[in-house]
Amino acid sequence: MNYYSAIIKQYQERVGTDKELPRITIESINMYHMFRLLDAQQYEKIAGYVGAAANNLLKAGCDFGLMCGNTPHLLFDKIQARTDLSLLSIVETAVAAAQQLHLQRLALLGTKFTMQNDFFIKPFREAGIEVCRPSENDQPIIHQKIVDKLENGIVKKETKQQLMTIINKMVQKDHLDGAVLGCTELPSILGQEDFKNIQVFDIAQVQIKAAVDQLLKTTPSQNS
Amino acid sequence: MNYYSAIIKQYQERVGTDKELPRITIESINMYHMFRLLDAQQYEKIAGYVGAAANNLLKAGCDFGLMCGNTPHLLFDKIQARTDLSLLSIVETAVAAAQQLHLQRLALLGTKFTMQNDFFIKPFREAGIEVCRPSENDQPIIHQKIVDKLENGIVKKETKQQLMTIINKMVQKDHLDGAVLGCTELPSILGQEDFKNIQVFDIAQVQIKAAVDQLLKTTPSQNS
Repeated sequence: MNYYSAIIKQYQERVGTDKELPRITIESINMYHMFRLLDAQQYEKIAGYVGAAANNLLKAGCDFGLMCGNTPHLLFDKIQARTDLSLLSIVETAVAAAQQLHLQRLALLGTKFTMQNDFFIKPFREAGIEVCRPSENDQPIIHQKIVDKLENGIVKKETKQQLMTIINKMVQKDHLDGAVLGCTELPSILGQEDFKNIQVFDIAQVQIKAAVDQLLKTTPSQNS
Repeated sequence: MNYYSAIIKQYQERVGTDKELPRITIESINMYHMFRLLDAQQYEKIAGYVGAAANNLLKAGCDFGLMCGNTPHLLFDKIQARTDLSLLSIVETAVAAAQQLHLQRLALLGTKFTMQNDFFIKPFREAGIEVCRPSENDQPIIHQKIVDKLENGIVKKETKQQLMTIINKMVQKDHLDGAVLGCTELPSILGQEDFKNIQVFDIAQVQIKAAVDQLLKTTPSQNS
């Protein structure tokens, strides 16, 4: 739910007053339900579940939708096909942001669904940016830390050390100039301040900026 | 937004697993807009604004609605008249909870709209429970601390001391056995641990319990 505060904060900075709030409707997704369906590879069911949530937002009068979290973007096209609500893609906005930062070779950290599949990596490659996966040994470690610890608000020094070691190893081996925090829980434990030689690239921030851009385009003043 | 986490937490405790989440849709109300309309006594406009938000939730498929905050209950009847979404009244649930605690005479702290009007006090009086207002000097202090500090997450020791002094003065003068934290921001600064001789009565907690009761009655499992 930090998304909500972050969007409000950036919106207020950009409209220049903290006495306004954008119109936001939130549909809460049961991530446990979604993870179970992902594990069972029930992709059509997930698209139906998230698509129905998007349709609820459309009926509630929303102009556009944001899937807060990277993992559901695995099924972005299938979900978008189930709803007339225009969805912002975190992947597209991340590619554009990486290009602006002139990044060439990135380490990707995220859930196993993000790391194992192509939905995140492919659009970067198509834009000429290489995205490298952690080793087969390290991927399950990262996934478990996100699901068991970070999703539950448990932020431990030991977890941070483990994740930093994995990234530093990749930077050396693959000659990287950046790392993508490809799960919106990762910024709770890692940030630019932890790394000297690479750019740390937080897709939640990218998505928040894109959401506020869109809000400022579509939301009329509600003070009438 | 602490409501969200509190409802989830209590829901998970009561269903006995932290791997489930209730279906929740949140419509964000611009409280600055509402306070401006309240100051201008534009009650029909507020009822229209909050009623429209409730209707958005109805269209999104919600079974019932909760106005998170005590102040909008000033216009509960007018708002309920604008929507077919069944709204839970924080005042009714608060009266029932005070009766269960066998409270007789309570101090009321809240925004000026809560303290100056009858919507909160009257249903208590009808149930035989006396609710006392702070003095005319103290009411503006409490209101300003809520709006300027607590609503913005600013929790200062000095504010706490001021509020405790006001309550203790009332307890002595009016022979009270309890105090109602009649604004959902007040528990961020005051709690039972601050008072020995009176029962501190937090209407947010009462409302959260009522919401979970209702969720367990109305929400079918979403794991199908």
